Amino acid sequence: MNLLNAGQTAAFLRECSDVHILIHRSPDGDCIGSGYALYAVLTAFGVRARVCCADPIPPMYRFLIEGVEFEEFAPQTVIAVDVADLQLLGDLREQYEGKIDLCIDHHISNTGYAAANFWNPNASAACEALYTLLKSMQFPITKQIALCLYTGMATDTGCFKFSNAGADTFAAVADLKRMFDLPYASLNRQLFDVKSKGRMALDARLMQAVQMSADDRIALLYLPYVWMEELGVSANEVDGASNLPLQIAGVEIGILVKEQPEGGYRISMRAGDHADVSVICRHFGGGGHVKAGGCSIAEGTPEAVCKMLMEVSEAMLNA
Amino acid sequence: MNLLNAGQTAAFLRECSDVHILIHRSPDGDCIGSGYALYAVLTAFGVRARVCCADPIPPMYRFLIEGVEFEEFAPQTVIAVDVADLQLLGDLREQYEGKIDLCIDHHISNTGYAAANFWNPNASAACEALYTLLKSMQFPITKQIALCLYTGMATDTGCFKFSNAGADTFAAVADLKRMFDLPYASLNRQLFDVKSKGRMALDARLMQAVQMSADDRIALLYLPYVWMEELGVSANEVDGASNLPLQIAGVEIGILVKEQPEGGYRISMRAGDHADVSVICRHFGGGGHVKAGGCSIAEGTPEAVCKMLMEVSEAMLNA
Repeated sequence: MNLLNAGQTAAFLRECSDVHILIHRSPDGDCIGSGYALYAVLTAFGVRARVCCADPIPPMYRFLIEGVEFEEFAPQTVIAVDVADLQLLGDLREQYEGKIDLCIDHHISNTGYAAANFWNPNASAACEALYTLLKSMQFPITKQIALCLYTGMATDTGCFKFSNAGADTFAAVADLKRMFDLPYASLNRQLFDVKSKGRMALDARLMQAVQMSADDRIALLYLPYVWMEELGVSANEVDGASNLPLQIAGVEIGILVKEQPEGGYRISMRAGDHADVSVICRHFGGGGHVKAGGCSIAEGTPEAVCKMLMEVSEAMLNA
Repeated sequence: MNLLNAGQTAAFLRECSDVHILIHRSPDGDCIGSGYALYAVLTAFGVRARVCCADPIPPMYRFLIEGVEFEEFAPQTVIAVDVADLQLLGDLREQYEGKIDLCIDHHISNTGYAAANFWNPNASAACEALYTLLKSMQFPITKQIALCLYTGMATDTGCFKFSNAGADTFAAVADLKRMFDLPYASLNRQLFDVKSKGRMALDARLMQAVQMSADDRIALLYLPYVWMEELGVSANEVDGASNLPLQIAGVEIGILVKEQPEGGYRISMRAGDHADVSVICRHFGGGGHVKAGGCSIAEGTPEAVCKMLMEVSEAMLNA
């Protein structure tokens, strides 16, 4: 991987032009936050830029993109943020593969696909890596950029709950909170707590059908797509359900298997204190972090897929 | 209220002897954390001290008190921590009323009952106030004290989610995280996420019987004591359920009414972005903060008590 330090990255950003900023498919708070923060930084430098994503921005993150409108233009520079792997570009992969000049990321699993990288695997979020970069550039962080950076750090750390929320993360948020009196509590409530009645009902159904194994150290929830239709719950709305299985006392590996409308399954995994789910996710061609990862399985009956995930997880726990 | 600054409070702590440290009844992470942190500080000064509480320390907080054993002795000095009001001393009130030399607290509602006060109503937690004091004293914070202080700040802010989690709170935690590599994520999971199967079932029952009013801006959950017996859920275990009603989209005031085994009701209230529940709690002789408060109601049928709480809350919302 060709690494740039903060000074080199800053020079790159100041000198680039006509930038397409790529964020990953199924966009989350961190890629949207870092993508739109970078957009604001480049715009402040007088550089034309836009954010490109294979999927639409979920309604819960629309507050980050309000008032932003992009021009259509051909890119002179392509920058990926929070994208660990080309596969995560989704439908944008074909168009941009081999043309990515810079990647700003924090994933330990980053494959080094970009020509140059500002990469900090110790950062909790791409937004934390970007915050560090902006501070070292002495860039005047605006209220909108602070909102983006806070959202990315908050969402990638489960509101500062996970092990990736380090001293630097807390110091960065302290700094942002000193700069701007944003409605953090209201934001946190919307991002982490509030559920529609449909989602509440879905969670209850999921929990009632929990599958457990390995002396209750593994909990798996299977979500048939028809439940989401029945309860009027969207794919984005269900993301937080990934954290449900780990809420059961004693569970070390929590698995959520989501049947996809087009067939196949998307799997989210979460690890407790002692497990590493990145190993399991990589086994199935996915990726992520030690404590949170994901993968896709294209084929198989729900029973077979769940059984396979259970077996690999058991093997990992007993390794 | 007779206020002391950090220097005066430090001088007091260095010169006192035979200290009883009082924490509030139904002890939570902040009063246990600040009480036991202060105990460790006094012990380091060679001052004999003990923590006194009307109720036992809940099992989930036992990790803060492991290995600590107190001598019996008559107090020369009495210090209350995180106690806003004498009433919150529970059964200890009679013994200590009028004899409290110092109070270390952060509640805006503190009644000024102590002879002297180290009071910071801008602090998220008594533990944050104590952290500030220890830093200004240049006291060498130990790993055990850091654990106590972190726990108090984390629990009083809902793991840094509530509006009381300020820049200073984040800076304090950044400092503690730089000092000691404690198992923060594991601790957070135990404090905030993990529920027994009984508690999971209880939450489902509570949510199924939710009462809503004022165009779904108020949500009230009523918990009959018998449910806790049926599901084997303890009083301490049920505390987190106070946050459930506010998880419903659009709710501004969330109320949990817990029937008490000895008769009467304890009420926890939470406010969304626009409401102030401290007003409502004070109306019923209780107290707390703008966004989180509590009170007790001694008499009435469940229906009458819930109706009354709804009416006062509606009046507050429409005020």
